[in-house]
Amino acid sequence: MLINTLNILKIGGKVLEDEQQLDQALSYFSQLPQPAILVHGGGKKASEMSQKLGIQPKMINGRRITDADALEVVTMIYAGLSNKKVVSQLQAKGCNALGISGADGNIILSQKRVVRDIDYGFAGDIVAVNTIALCHLLNAGFVPVCCAITHNKRGQLLNTNADTIAAELAIALADDYEVCLQYCFEKPGVLMDAEDDTSVIPTIQPDRYQQLKADGIIYEGMIPKLDNAFAAIEAGVKQVSIGNLKALTANEATILNA
Amino acid sequence: MLINTLNILKIGGKVLEDEQQLDQALSYFSQLPQPAILVHGGGKKASEMSQKLGIQPKMINGRRITDADALEVVTMIYAGLSNKKVVSQLQAKGCNALGISGADGNIILSQKRVVRDIDYGFAGDIVAVNTIALCHLLNAGFVPVCCAITHNKRGQLLNTNADTIAAELAIALADDYEVCLQYCFEKPGVLMDAEDDTSVIPTIQPDRYQQLKADGIIYEGMIPKLDNAFAAIEAGVKQVSIGNLKALTANEATILNA
Repeated sequence: MLINTLNILKIGGKVLEDEQQLDQALSYFSQLPQPAILVHGGGKKASEMSQKLGIQPKMINGRRITDADALEVVTMIYAGLSNKKVVSQLQAKGCNALGISGADGNIILSQKRVVRDIDYGFAGDIVAVNTIALCHLLNAGFVPVCCAITHNKRGQLLNTNADTIAAELAIALADDYEVCLQYCFEKPGVLMDAEDDTSVIPTIQPDRYQQLKADGIIYEGMIPKLDNAFAAIEAGVKQVSIGNLKALTANEATILNA
Repeated sequence: MLINTLNILKIGGKVLEDEQQLDQALSYFSQLPQPAILVHGGGKKASEMSQKLGIQPKMINGRRITDADALEVVTMIYAGLSNKKVVSQLQAKGCNALGISGADGNIILSQKRVVRDIDYGFAGDIVAVNTIALCHLLNAGFVPVCCAITHNKRGQLLNTNADTIAAELAIALADDYEVCLQYCFEKPGVLMDAEDDTSVIPTIQPDRYQQLKADGIIYEGMIPKLDNAFAAIEAGVKQVSIGNLKALTANEATILNA
């Protein structure tokens, strides 16, 4: 059986804030072979809007604490402003974008994060991805553009990490497609020396990853990102690339594979 | 050839603001035979948000003047907060809602309203409805929930009247379905006496409508609403009902037909 390649690109908040970077990222995405899915965050704009509305954004360990007011703001920004801006700009580039949250078509079912030491509020941990619904959209020629909002199918919207959404969509669709997942972030790739942007590691396999972690070369914020990525590889995703737009475009980003 | 019935329900801003009314309206909608489409506005919440953000909502002749700031607000509220709230609550009721704006899947193409005496700003007049895309969604078992935002396919989002969206969707799909369009608004129906809620006119045909207008029984804000509705009837929509939720539920709303 011939299996199609599915491209999933995740773009972060910083790309969304800068008109020129966003335009370049959307041009890059719209030229990827389809089927394709775009996943986006939108954190900074949500923080700005919170401040305008007099709501102080609350963060613990780099994660947003989502109380009821914060959930309203992220829903407005992620699913409203950012999602429709991206969709309309992709449509202008001839890419048949269709914006979704996880609530739409029940595509991403989550549960409110269980309170242990920290109460994250209305933060959602993904329980299931509705691959049938996603395949309906992909087969009809739509290009899903997914924001970082999910739901619990009991009427509650939940704020969900966009990196995790991208990984979970990739994993869920790995039975139906050869999935290539790309994370677009600030750095040109995974670096041997965090201070040296020319030190991109071209490819990393699971064994080398463990070694790089043990040697302290990969540390801090990169660890959850790469743990996520290698979990996707282990679950059957063909390839994960990590880099900035320039590196991804030039095929010079770091590639993770089995 | 057997033609399916398609139910289109439009709910206004006032229903969206009241949790109990919204819940009842969504219960009613989720029990309509499918395929079905929900269209919603969300005006008041957008005005509230504008005021919180220090943006004065501008209105001329009951229509919002949409400058760049106002467009951001309506995009956040209509496509973000209101749309996802409705979608998640419908999903909780077992209705497979999928939220869209006109930009998504290029479903509603508009052009920026031409400036004559008034510059409405980023207001969109509908040019085309993408029935192929809509039928893909309907045939895949999705229930589209459409907010009052469209686009010009050149990257510009546009604010568009929700009553008009409902009528244009109904007209566009009248070749594929027997379309029943329902407008849920504050009054129990079209009234013989605007002060008497028990004076609902059960049915109106085009000739009688012209007479009621000539006699001054139908006047002011009801005229554009009913002009829209009769344009839909003339274009092949099977039936238009107008009333509040109680009247629609009890089949006591005003029915317009050919």
